[in-house]
This record gives sequence, C-alpha cells and structure tokens, in this order.
Amino acid sequence: MKDTVAYFNGEWLAQEEVRIDPFDRGFYVGDAVFDLTRTFDGRSFKMAEHVDRLYRSLSYARIDPGVTAEEMIDISEEGIRKNEPARLAGAGDWHVWQAVTRGTGAFRKPMSAATVMVLYLPLGASTYAPYYRTGAHGIIARTRSYSPLALDPKIKHYSRMNFNIAEQEAYDVDPEGWPILLDQNGNLSEGNGYNVFLVTSGVLRTPKDDAILQGVSRGAIYELAERLDIPVAEEDLQPYDLYTADEAFISNTPSCLLPMTKVDHRQIGDGKPGPITRQLLAAWSEWVGVDIVGQMESLNSR
Amino acid sequence: MKDTVAYFNGEWLAQEEVRIDPFDRGFYVGDAVFDLTRTFDGRSFKMAEHVDRLYRSLSYARIDPGVTAEEMIDISEEGIRKNEPARLAGAGDWHVWQAVTRGTGAFRKPMSAATVMVLYLPLGASTYAPYYRTGAHGIIARTRSYSPLALDPKIKHYSRMNFNIAEQEAYDVDPEGWPILLDQNGNLSEGNGYNVFLVTSGVLRTPKDDAILQGVSRGAIYELAERLDIPVAEEDLQPYDLYTADEAFISNTPSCLLPMTKVDHRQIGDGKPGPITRQLLAAWSEWVGVDIVGQMESLNSR
Amino acid sequence: MKDTVAYFNGEWLAQEEVRIDPFDRGFYVGDAVFDLTRTFDGRSFKMAEHVDRLYRSLSYARIDPGVTAEEMIDISEEGIRKNEPARLAGAGDWHVWQAVTRGTGAFRKPMSAATVMVLYLPLGASTYAPYYRTGAHGIIARTRSYSPLALDPKIKHYSRMNFNIAEQEAYDVDPEGWPILLDQNGNLSEGNGYNVFLVTSGVLRTPKDDAILQGVSRGAIYELAERLDIPVAEEDLQPYDLYTADEAFISNTPSCLLPMTKVDHRQIGDGKPGPITRQLLAAWSEWVGVDIVGQMESLNSR
Amino acid sequence: MKDTVAYFNGEWLAQEEVRIDPFDRGFYVGDAVFDLTRTFDGRSFKMAEHVDRLYRSLSYARIDPGVTAEEMIDISEEGIRKNEPARLAGAGDWHVWQAVTRGTGAFRKPMSAATVMVLYLPLGASTYAPYYRTGAHGIIARTRSYSPLALDPKIKHYSRMNFNIAEQEAYDVDPEGWPILLDQNGNLSEGNGYNVFLVTSGVLRTPKDDAILQGVSRGAIYELAERLDIPVAEEDLQPYDLYTADEAFISNTPSCLLPMTKVDHRQIGDGKPGPITRQLLAAWSEWVGVDIVGQMESLNSR
Amino acid sequence: MKDTVAYFNGEWLAQEEVRIDPFDRGFYVGDAVFDLTRTFDGRSFKMAEHVDRLYRSLSYARIDPGVTAEEMIDISEEGIRKNEPARLAGAGDWHVWQAVTRGTGAFRKPMSAATVMVLYLPLGASTYAPYYRTGAHGIIARTRSYSPLALDPKIKHYSRMNFNIAEQEAYDVDPEGWPILLDQNGNLSEGNGYNVFLVTSGVLRTPKDDAILQGVSRGAIYELAERLDIPVAEEDLQPYDLYTADEAFISNTPSCLLPMTKVDHRQIGDGKPGPITRQLLAAWSEWVGVDIVGQMESLNSR
Amino acid sequence: MKDTVAYFNGEWLAQEEVRIDPFDRGFYVGDAVFDLTRTFDGRSFKMAEHVDRLYRSLSYARIDPGVTAEEMIDISEEGIRKNEPARLAGAGDWHVWQAVTRGTGAFRKPMSAATVMVLYLPLGASTYAPYYRTGAHGIIARTRSYSPLALDPKIKHYSRMNFNIAEQEAYDVDPEGWPILLDQNGNLSEGNGYNVFLVTSGVLRTPKDDAILQGVSRGAIYELAERLDIPVAEEDLQPYDLYTADEAFISNTPSCLLPMTKVDHRQIGDGKPGPITRQLLAAWSEWVGVDIVGQMESLNSR
Repeated sequence: MKDTVAYFNGEWLAQEEVRIDPFDRGFYVGDAVFDLTRTFDGRSFKMAEHVDRLYRSLSYARIDPGVTAEEMIDISEEGIRKNEPARLAGAGDWHVWQAVTRGTGAFRKPMSAATVMVLYLPLGASTYAPYYRTGAHGIIARTRSYSPLALDPKIKHYSRMNFNIAEQEAYDVDPEGWPILLDQNGNLSEGNGYNVFLVTSGVLRTPKDDAILQGVSRGAIYELAERLDIPVAEEDLQPYDLYTADEAFISNTPSCLLPMTKVDHRQIGDGKPGPITRQLLAAWSEWVGVDIVGQMESLNSR
Repeated sequence: MKDTVAYFNGEWLAQEEVRIDPFDRGFYVGDAVFDLTRTFDGRSFKMAEHVDRLYRSLSYARIDPGVTAEEMIDISEEGIRKNEPARLAGAGDWHVWQAVTRGTGAFRKPMSAATVMVLYLPLGASTYAPYYRTGAHGIIARTRSYSPLALDPKIKHYSRMNFNIAEQEAYDVDPEGWPILLDQNGNLSEGNGYNVFLVTSGVLRTPKDDAILQGVSRGAIYELAERLDIPVAEEDLQPYDLYTADEAFISNTPSCLLPMTKVDHRQIGDGKPGPITRQLLAAWSEWVGVDIVGQMESLNSR
Repeated sequence: MKDTVAYFNGEWLAQEEVRIDPFDRGFYVGDAVFDLTRTFDGRSFKMAEHVDRLYRSLSYARIDPGVTAEEMIDISEEGIRKNEPARLAGAGDWHVWQAVTRGTGAFRKPMSAATVMVLYLPLGASTYAPYYRTGAHGIIARTRSYSPLALDPKIKHYSRMNFNIAEQEAYDVDPEGWPILLDQNGNLSEGNGYNVFLVTSGVLRTPKDDAILQGVSRGAIYELAERLDIPVAEEDLQPYDLYTADEAFISNTPSCLLPMTKVDHRQIGDGKPGPITRQLLAAWSEWVGVDIVGQMESLNSR
Repeated sequence: MKDTVAYFNGEWLAQEEVRIDPFDRGFYVGDAVFDLTRTFDGRSFKMAEHVDRLYRSLSYARIDPGVTAEEMIDISEEGIRKNEPARLAGAGDWHVWQAVTRGTGAFRKPMSAATVMVLYLPLGASTYAPYYRTGAHGIIARTRSYSPLALDPKIKHYSRMNFNIAEQEAYDVDPEGWPILLDQNGNLSEGNGYNVFLVTSGVLRTPKDDAILQGVSRGAIYELAERLDIPVAEEDLQPYDLYTADEAFISNTPSCLLPMTKVDHRQIGDGKPGPITRQLLAAWSEWVGVDIVGQMESLNSR
Repeated sequence: MKDTVAYFNGEWLAQEEVRIDPFDRGFYVGDAVFDLTRTFDGRSFKMAEHVDRLYRSLSYARIDPGVTAEEMIDISEEGIRKNEPARLAGAGDWHVWQAVTRGTGAFRKPMSAATVMVLYLPLGASTYAPYYRTGAHGIIARTRSYSPLALDPKIKHYSRMNFNIAEQEAYDVDPEGWPILLDQNGNLSEGNGYNVFLVTSGVLRTPKDDAILQGVSRGAIYELAERLDIPVAEEDLQPYDLYTADEAFISNTPSCLLPMTKVDHRQIGDGKPGPITRQLLAAWSEWVGVDIVGQMESLNSR
Repeated sequence: MKDTVAYFNGEWLAQEEVRIDPFDRGFYVGDAVFDLTRTFDGRSFKMAEHVDRLYRSLSYARIDPGVTAEEMIDISEEGIRKNEPARLAGAGDWHVWQAVTRGTGAFRKPMSAATVMVLYLPLGASTYAPYYRTGAHGIIARTRSYSPLALDPKIKHYSRMNFNIAEQEAYDVDPEGWPILLDQNGNLSEGNGYNVFLVTSGVLRTPKDDAILQGVSRGAIYELAERLDIPVAEEDLQPYDLYTADEAFISNTPSCLLPMTKVDHRQIGDGKPGPITRQLLAAWSEWVGVDIVGQMESLNSR
C-alpha cells in the first residue's frame, strides 16, 4: 500500500522501507511475537485486548520490548491517525500489526535490544469477501498444531511452518479449502489464524483454549452470544462434531466471522450459512457501525 | 564481518545490505528452510550432503527455490572464493548459510518467487572454544522438540521458537547450560542445532532420527567411528542413559564435536572429556587437516 | 423368532431368509453402520433420535443409503406393525435394528448400492433381568476403545473386534462381568453397547462424549434427571471415580438402565442398587407406561 | 466368478450360494479373522505361512475354528484342485480366502460353533496392472491405524472401518490415491491390505511390526533381498522418510509388490519405479515361475 | 517432638518408639496409603473428609486396615487429646498423620495384618511462614506426576519418588523453588503435597481432578469462594495460564493456602499476594478462629 | 531368619533388630533405592554389576550413600561371611539386599545422612520351585509401569505401588498369575521384579530397556545366549508377540529364569517349558556350579 507509514524501532518510516536484518532472531529462529488489531471505519476495535495478549506472549517468551503496553497502544493509534489518508484512498480499513523480535544475537551471548514494529495492512477483502454468502470449505489437515509442551499455541508467534504445510494439505483436497488443525490429542484446534465454531441444537460450541490462540474475535462472539441469549460451550471437539453440526463458522480479526458450509466434503446443515451464524454477523455489524459483509464485498469489487 | 559478500536472489551484495521484507513469509510465518556448511581452511566440508539435506527440506515444505542443487553448490563455492580475503583477514573459517523462503504473499493467493540467499558467517569461536577441554554442561529442558505430527525436526527450518524458550530454561539452571530437548515421547532428541552422543561400555549411542535433524556432523562421526572400530547404536534414549553414561558430547557443524561433562548436575564419567570423545576429535582434525580445537582456541583468543 | 418379517433392500422377507453376501463390505471389511430402537408395548421410543444418529453415522462414513431418514422411520414403523402378532406371541417388545452397509465391491472400483435392512429382535430378557435387583458387575478391561483418530466411537458401526476381546477379558475376571473400556487417554469410556453412569454426592456423572457413543438412553436419562432435579455432569472420569462412587449403573436401549454394584471387586456404595438409580428407573417406567423391570423379569421367567 | 466352489462349514457349495446370517458375529460385531493366499499358475504360494498367521489371529481372538491348521491347508488345497477348471477358464490365478467367524450368539451366552469358509477369488488384475510400469500414488491419510491397545493390527480381522474411511480420504486428494496410514505414534504403518517399503541409499526400509500386519509378502521380500544382498532395516519411519526416499513400493499378496512413484504430491526419486524395486520384482517372477507383471497385464487386457 | 504419643497397631506408644520393619511392604514396595488432618488451636479441621479420603485410598489399593473409618476418627481424636500438653508446650498445632501399610509379606503369599499408625507432627512453621507476605516461587518441573494408568494421584500413597526428584529440579532453578508437576498430558497437576490455584479476571481456576489429589483444603477453598461469591472453575490448565495469571497460590493442609508470586522467573500480577488470595486467607482465619498467618509467623519466630 | 546379621548405618545388628523411623524418607515418600544380589552355594554372583546398578540409581536420585561402591561390595561380602552359619543352617542361599534411603527430613530443609542397610534373605523357594517344570502363568495387567517422564523404571526404587496393584489384578484373573505390565506406549515392559523373554523362530526376544529395569539376570542370559549361539533381539513387543511366541520365560535374581507356559489364558507353544528355555537354565546351572532347579525344589520340600 503506497503512502503508508509504519513504526520501526522508534521511528516512523514509509512502510516499504521497513526491512529486517537476516540475522535478526525474529527471522532466523522465528523468535518473534505479534498481534493484529483491525479498524472499523478507521476506529480500532478491542485494541487493549490485542495489546494485552501481545504482552502475555512477550511475557511467556521473556522478550522485553522496551515499550510499555500503554505506549504500544499509543503508537498503534498514532499510526492509524497518520495513515488515515491512505485508508480513505483505498485501504478501507486496517490490520494494525504489532510485532516484536528478540533482536539480533546468538546463543547465550549478549543480544541487541528487541526489534519493535507496527505495520498497517489493508483488510484483504479478496480473501474473505467471496465466502460470506456461500460459506467457506473446511479441510481438517493431517498436520497438527504444536503441542503446548513444545510451543503453546496461546502465544502468537512467527514460528508457523506447520500452518504453512497444513495450508498446502487443504489445497490438495480443495483449492478453496481452509485448513483446520487437530491438536496433539486429536481434538479440533484452530486454523491458520482463525478459531472454529459450530452450532449443535442451538448451542454455540468451540474448542477449549488448551491448544489454540485465545482469539479476541472469539471473545467478541462470546459477548454477542450473551447479548443474543445463545448458550456457548467450550469443549473438546472431534471431527465428528464438525461434520454433524447444524452450522459452522470461523472467526478472526479481519473477517470477524466467516460461514463454513462444507467440511471434508460433508455438507454442514443445509449447505448454507446458518441462522445463528447470520444473526451473529448482523449483530456484530450493528455493534461496530459498519456493514461487515457489505464493506468486504465493496472493497473486493473495486 | 566487514567486506563479506552474500548471494541474495541472484545477486552478490555486500552482506550487510541483505535485508528482508517484513511481509516475506520466511519472516512472518517462519516459512523458510536453510542449511549450513562449514569450511576448514577455506575448503568446504561435506557441501553436497548439506545441500542434499537442504533440498530434502525444500521438497518436504514444497518450496521451489528456482535453483538446482548443483547451482546451489556452485553459488556457495563461488561465495567462498569471493570471501577468501575476508576469511584470511579474520573470520578464520566460514559457516556457509543457505536459506530459502517461500517469498512474499498470503493465504491461497499468488505468491512471489522464493527468496534465496547464501550468507557467510565466521565460526563463532567464543561459543565453543571454552568447552573443548573442560566440557560443556547439558541441561535437559522441559520444553519439547516438535512432534513430527506437527513439524518434523528432520526439516531444517526457521520456526524455532521452542528452541529459544528451551535455551532460557537451560540458562535458568546453569548460565553455562546447553539445552537438550526431549521428543514427544520423552526420549532424548537434540539441542539447539546440535545432536547428542553418549558412550556406554565402549558403544557410541545417539538418538534414532525419528525426531531430530539428521546431522551431517553426526554422519561424519559415524564415518570416523567406523574407521576407528567404535560400534555405533541409534536408539531411543532416556535421561537416565545420559546421566549414567561414561562419556557424552554434542556435535554440530561449527564445533564438529564438543565434550559434555555434566548433565543436570550429574557428573558424566570422571567429569573430564572421555577417551573416545578425544579420539574422535583427533581423528576429525586429521581428516580435515585442521587442528579443530587449536583453531577455535586461537580464534577465540584474538 | 419365528414369523418375524424384516426389511431387506426394498423388500419384506421372513427374517430368517435375510442373508448377507460374503463379499458385502459390511461383512468383509466391517463397512456398515447401524442403530437400534426399542419398543415399549409395541410403541417405538425415540425412533427419530435413533434414526438421526444413524444418519450422522452414515454421513461420517459417507455411505448413501438410498433412503431418506423419514423413509427409514416409516419402514421401521411399518415393520413394527407387521410384526405385532409375533410380538404378542412372545417377543414382548422389539429391538428395531436398522443396518446399512456400503454394498459389495472393492478398492477404488464401482460399488453396488448400499445394503439396507431393518431387523426385529426380541429384547433379550435373559441378558438383563437377573441384574435389576442385585446389580451387574463391571470389569474395566485392558483392551481400549478406539481412538477417534482411528475410528470415532460416536459412529455406530460393525467393526467391533476390540469389544469382543474386552468381553472375554471381563469374563476371565468374573463370568458375570460386564466390560467397561477406557479410551485412548485412560478415561472411562463405555461398554459393549452401553454407557456408564455414576453418582457421587448426589451428582450424576458420566463420561464426556469425546470417545463414546452418544447414547440415546443416556440422553433420556438426562431428561429424567432434569425432571427429578438431579444435577448431571459430563466429565473425564478415571477408574478411581467409579471404584469410589456412591452408585453406578449402565444404560442402553434394551435395558434402559441396569444397576452396577461392584467394579473390579470393589463394592460400590453399600453393594445394592442405589436410591438415585432406582428413582431414575421408576421414573422411566412411568414415562413409557411399562414396568421396565417387571416386563424383563416376566419375559425371562417364561 | 461362475462355476467356482467354496468351502462353507464343512461343505463344498457353489460359491455364489455362500451366504451369511445377519446375526453372525462376523457380520454384526466384526468378530472374524481371515487370511489370503495366492496361487501362481494354480500352485499355492506360502500357504503354510498364511495359515500359520490365520491361527495366530484365531489364538489372539480366542476363536476355535474346529479345524486344525493342517486341515485348513488341506481344505484350501482341495478347493484349488476343484476350481482348476474355473481358473483355466479365466480367473488366471486365485486368492484363496480363509475366513472364520465366532459364529452366531450374543454377549455372555452360549454361542454356535464358528463359521468357517474358504472362498476363491480371481486376482483382481484391474486393480494392480495399471501401476507396475508407472507407479502407484501414495496418500498418507489422516485416519490412523488402530492402536494395539485397542486392536492389534497384527490380527487380520474384519473390523476395518478405519481403512474404509482412509480410502476415501486418499480418493479426495487423488482419485488414483492409495492410502497409507500412520500408527498411533505418527509413524508410517501400512495401507489397506499392503505393507510399505522404501529405499534410501541402497537400504530397503520398512516399518517395524509394532502396529502393522506381519505381511507374508513382506517376508518374501526379506528372503529375496537376502538372496540379492540388499540390506533390510525395520524402523520407525515418518512421512519425511517416504517423501525423501529414492524408491518406494507396496507389497501384498495379490500384487506381490507394486511400485510407488509419488506420495502426497512429492515425486519419489526420478518419478519412475526404481532399480531395486524392479530387481525384486524380477527375482520374484523367477522364484514363482510366473511373469508377475505380464500375467497381471494380460489378465487386465482381456 | 518430645512427649508426643502415637498410635501403632492398637497401642499408644511414645512416638519416638514407633519403628517400621524393613520387610514391611509400606517400606520396601511403597505399599501404604495415608492422610493428614490438621488442628486449629487443638481442634481438628475436616477430620471426616480426610478419613473418608483415606478410606477411598484404602479401597482403591484393596488394603483392609482392620479398623473402621469411625474408629479411625476416634483414634485420631483420642491422640489429639493425649497430646494436648505437648501441643501447648510448643507444637502449636498438629498434623494428625494416619498411615496404613499392607503389612509384611511377599508376592502371592499370606500376609500379615495391615500396619496402622497415627502420628502427631508439629505444623512445620519454618516451611511456610516466610512466604505468606512475599509469596512462594513456583517452578514447573520436568518430572511428571504419575499417569492414572500407572498410579492414580487421587490415591494418597507412599510411592512418591517422582516428587522427590521434582523437588531437586525446582531447587536447581531456585533454592526457594516450590515444584509444580505437569500431568501425563502436559497440564498443570499439583506440587509435593499441595494443589495449585490461579486467578484470571476474577475467576478462581484450578486443575480438574483427573490426575491430582482431591485436596481437602482445595475443597475448603471452594466453600470459602462460594461464600465470598468468587466463581471457581476446574479446568485443564497449561503453564501459559499460570505465567499470565493475575494471582496464584497453593493450598495444602498445613499452610491452608500460600501465595505464589513468581513462576519460572515470570512475575505473577504485580509480584505481591493478590487481593482474592488475601481475601480467602482472611476468611479462612475467621472460619477456624485462628489467625493462620499470625500463628505460623509466631511459631516460626520462636 | 533367625541368627542372621545385617548391616545398618555402619553397624552389624541381628537382622530382626533393624527398624526404620516412620519419618525416614525411604518410608514416607518412597525415597529409597536398592539392589539385590544372590549367592550360589554362598558365593555371590555378579555382585559388581548389582552394586554398579545401585550406584546408577543413587546417581539418578542424587542420594549420597556416604559409602563407595567398593565399600558397599566389601560390606555385602562381609555379611555373606558372617551369615554363612545361618545359610548352612537352612537358608540355602541368600538374597543380599542393599538399600539406601535419603534419610530423615523434609522439603527444602537440612536432611540427615542417608540410611544404609544390607539385609540377608533366604531365596524364597516356595515362590519359584513349583513353576520350573510346569511353567508360570503370565497375566498382562491393566495397570501400567511408570513412564520414564515420571519415574524411570531403570531406577530400582521403593515407590512401587503400581506393582502392588498389578499383582492384585493378576490374582483376580488367576490366583497363580504373575503380572506383566505394559509401558506408557502399550509395549510389554516387565513384571514385579522380573524381566520377560520370549522365543520366536529361534530368536530370543525381550523388551528394549526404554522403560524397564536393566536386569542383571537379563544380562546373564545375554551372555549365556551368546555362548549357546542363540540370537537375541531387544525390541518393542506387544501382547500379540507374547501370545503367539514359541516359548516364554521370566528372569530375575532369585529364580535366574522361570518358564512361562500360559499368558492371559493363551497357551504358549505346546504348553510346556520350551527347549531354549531349558537349555539356558541348564547352562546357567553349569555356569554357577549349582543345580538351580534342584536346589529350589529341595529347599521347597523341607
């Protein structure tokens, strides 16, 4: 995106000038954590929750960003303001992407200070827009999410090679396939940056957070469900539960939620986005004052 | 290292000019594989084996580097020649570091070509030199290596956050501690870039390659052991085996092999590098025509 | 049972004439799913729930029965009507047994249509009647239920060799023993066609449905418990919980529920069917208008 | 196959008259074991090994066939003689299929005698013939083989629903795909009735028999390899090993061995059946005095 | 403790005269169960709950103590009375320690009667007193709690070697470290005789009792939380949850509860005992009529 | 055994005077390791190997016995000499039982010195004598051996409650049953103080030492097998392998080896001790100059 600025180690640069040292640990050993907030009509949504999760990731990984959570929020909001012209000129809305690496340096040696950046990306409408009305296709991948014994998926990190491979597996089965990974025990976990929900007999069900990212959008859906009197259950779920659900959808920051109408070639419900799915999406649009689907479709048709 | 050149996407640059786009998948989703060859007096050692392993990693990850294995060898050797002045001026010897990322691009969208680079790093004598005579200290970390169900450790990749955390755990116990990870089943696997060996009753024992990198140095040790008539066994090993071994050492490309004389506060053997360990190291020096320990210590004392 | 008719691939036959091709996949590769509804005084109970579960099994296994769920209900009820004379002549009540195999045919070749049958079996009073008053004996088998990674126990299928072996293990310990299997994680799962319940401090507890059949009788017990204000908890349970429970029982379609007074030679509570167990059984009899125990005992004494 | 006779519970019948009671435990609870011998030009191959394995399966499952192993061999050979006209008239060669079920009867009740049958099937050339020259495509399924804790895959039984589902998963990725299952630990196990072999640096490697059928053809390959001085290793293998192998093939009774040239869209070696694969196949043809590939292709082209 | 009496196999002895036969199974094969009640100002607290758990342990282990639960309570209370002078003379308050071994004897041979003892120990103020105000330090050990498949941690037994080793691991990291073990699945379980609690967003969270001792103090905290309107959740928890909690504490019989302000070098909350922790401790003191912290500190300062 | 002396913390006592403090950690937290050497006609056998293993256990557990391995051997031999009259008077031969506890003391507090003892027990002929000719019966228990993640079975310790429970499970199935435990992965491990061997097609097979005690008798069998040209394989073995073996036996210090002719009601081979079993036993008798079976039977008939 032309004319976008980004924060990089204390400075504001033209975003395309941000570049990473190949000896930065965030690159060569995946030693980085990040988070992602989106805007609605240029206003950030749940920025504090995202930054709180970023600092939980930092605390787990024992990376000192040299910047407080409050400062991180201020920086992020400042960039939104700075980039408002670029947003109006075409981005529509932003992913505000905060990333922190441990810096450069090697094994048991003094290291540099952390590398800290805040980047601004357009929503990626072409990824999501086509599926709000027809539903995305889920493919349960053979590749697993990491065991928390190795690397807890509650940390939002840059060491995501298993997701890259799962993405290819999904593609092999269906070029439109969205991967869903199982955890070390064989329960449903999450996809490449999205949580999974299903509806059975009126209950909204989603994996417990033993081995998934604690999605901020997932939390937003809990809030919406409470307002709409839809019961929510966090459970250990198996592929059977998804195949035989009445409705299914995924949730993440850019899309909010995206209906899923087929999983591993089994049709979910009647094969169309279900009533609870649509109800949640409508309530969300109302909440943020933006027609979520409309905006995505309009951005995509440009 | 001043005056070193590096290969980057078809060009030779001053190495310090190599920089990575923050939207390169090798950075933001750890979507990169690499390998590392060392030189002895400026001559590469087992380059073909390293490049062969790199291409196995690429094949598993389904990344097309746009360069054949033969070309990768040629490029790597060309850089050695180009950097000979820098080597003589102080590096001593190189890690030749080949890395390939999938390029820039997102989920189920057209992507750029792969990002391909060959970098040249000095040996890192200060990391290894102090331990050849006294032995390093192993700490068995609580953090695990990845399960091959999630990400097979036989792939040499950039998604190594679990190693970063294990490194800190080792440090917590002993600031001089070298982490050793257990695999998903609780067997000894490997450390942060090194394999583990132990000697029990004259037999050289090392973990099977179910969940470790298939070390080229490990292979070199097999060759040396065969010449020296030392029997070798690949086995599932537990911490007990390491604690009660007669000798222990780690192997990797920069150090060749490094004695280990203490693990989790249990002394190994008589607490000094053992006779088979020393025999292997001597034979290796003879093989490559470089006094491995002497070179490291000399580089470290500069 | 003489004079009983059965549905087989579109026709009504004398049940004893129903025979299976040895090259039917339902036989030689266990490629069949089924369900079982019982009648009370000739009226079916929860037929829709059973047929719904059958169609969930079919959907998981991707077998097309060529018959809709509604048609399956109609066929099943039609057979009940046709077999009413046989019921009155001695069967007492029926298991209505719907089974669907994938048909004949081999690996990646065109296959025949599915084999569809509805069979009618008497209740099997001699299996259950002796235990309503004294309690059955549970034996936790060494053989495990299938992992959902291999074959989800929520599918009601014909590939039950592990249950056959577990049955023998139970018999080895106690010729009157009823096997209870542990799941892949070592938690209580289910027995050979029955769910397991226990009562601790007034709470009715039963395994979560991660790795068990979602028993329709289990669901009926939830309904009864709600009416009777007995709290119900789905949990991961271990043998300890069963050994130290105040009451225990099993539930399945033919017996409704059967008290369990001993597990692995440990007496449950005071060694007699407990008060909540008896309360549930009485409420069930009232619900269906049949004295469940009385009918079983009367049929058994003929 | 017209005019074929089969043994069924002590009698010889026209094979198409063999039919199974739907209350036979071999059908409704998968309570049956079996084995499969093939003929070469009408002569049985390794009949004693197959029957020995059948009796190991029977012993594990504690089914008494009422017939000794010697008698089973005699019956099987007698049927070969009786069916010689049918073989010459078109079958080419037989699968001699011995199956034993526990008989009819229910839970902890007296049961009937075992159901014992020996069936005669043509080779199924159309399944195998197309792949000897181009190689089959392996697909590693998400569905797992059974854990030996639930049902040891060394028993050759009729409870194979997990294989049926794996077959569909393979088809989803490649309509020509042959499924390969992982065991409970994530190691390569076997496919739907075939073992898996790979060749790495001249060594023939195959999964240990912890969780696979102990293939008689696998044993035959060991014999051939010994004669041909090809080293054989039984190992825990991961998908990586298969993806990066020099050659791969599967082995079973009907095909003997069938080259595999692609796995999960990764090409094996140069994408053609490898030299050791071809050498083994040639040696086998010589051993049995039948051109294995030629016969299959000739039968398939009729 | 001088002048204390103890119950031993039916007799009251000076406690220092209680001695165990080295061929008692409680010693040489860890074949013993026990429980521990504490007093507050000489009055026992939840004696019935402790003895009930002791008898659940006995029932699981199938040890017949030859004494009823009621008699065990009477004996325990009698000893409290007998030891009142010793308590006033300095013990402050007691651990009342009931232990039962299976007696002497060997494998499948007649055994002696059980060895039954009730011992009286002072509170151990020096262990706990220093941490009420500053908080203890938790260290998550690499050594695991036993799998319930091997030995269910819900049994309070004498076979605790894994805890002894975990204690040393904690010490290696922090000489003041209190070990916390993970269960077989990698979830938080318990420490060496204490349960673990954490507070997240106002909810009191603690591991489910799949693989921990069902702490009586844990139960007391549930009661207190209910009175104080603090929601309680039993969950599968991972180290992440503990590292990122707002508050944390451990609970056991002697300390009641002890704040935890650091885990694996990550600070919990603001590094001081949290408000809910302090509220629970205050309510407990009120409940039992003893200033819990004050008593410990006073005993420790003597 | 009357008139036997024992070593206890530096002194020689009448063995019946050895008594353990109930606050010794070896008792109340199973914090002890031990080993067991037997004599043949009063001469110790493989004393050095047993003491070496004892010191490996001590090193793992980090218990300092205050006595060197050489001193431990001397003490043990001295006791043999002292107890020679008692041996001749009836013991026949001894188990020399060395045990070391960590001493008295509690959590992170100064502890006493270790408790060290050497005890002398008669062979226990009545346990073994009846089975040399008919074979013992193995029962595979549901209770598991400890995972090395919790407590490595290679350590010979006093925390053996799981074995006590397994013993009862074996008894439930067969009052003459000898328990065999599976390890955490479901492979055969060991029994209550004995290793397990089986013979298949002339090969002696036994579990790898991942999760078993490294039996000194097991090592002796390796030596005998080498002399007798019997191939030995250490493998992961499943119940199937034992059920279908040609021969089976267990080995331990007192019995040397004991034939096993039935496992879980499956007959092993022809139901009699097999030829390789008998050959090994004969060779062993010759080795030690004692008729092993004859001595046991003669001692048992007194």
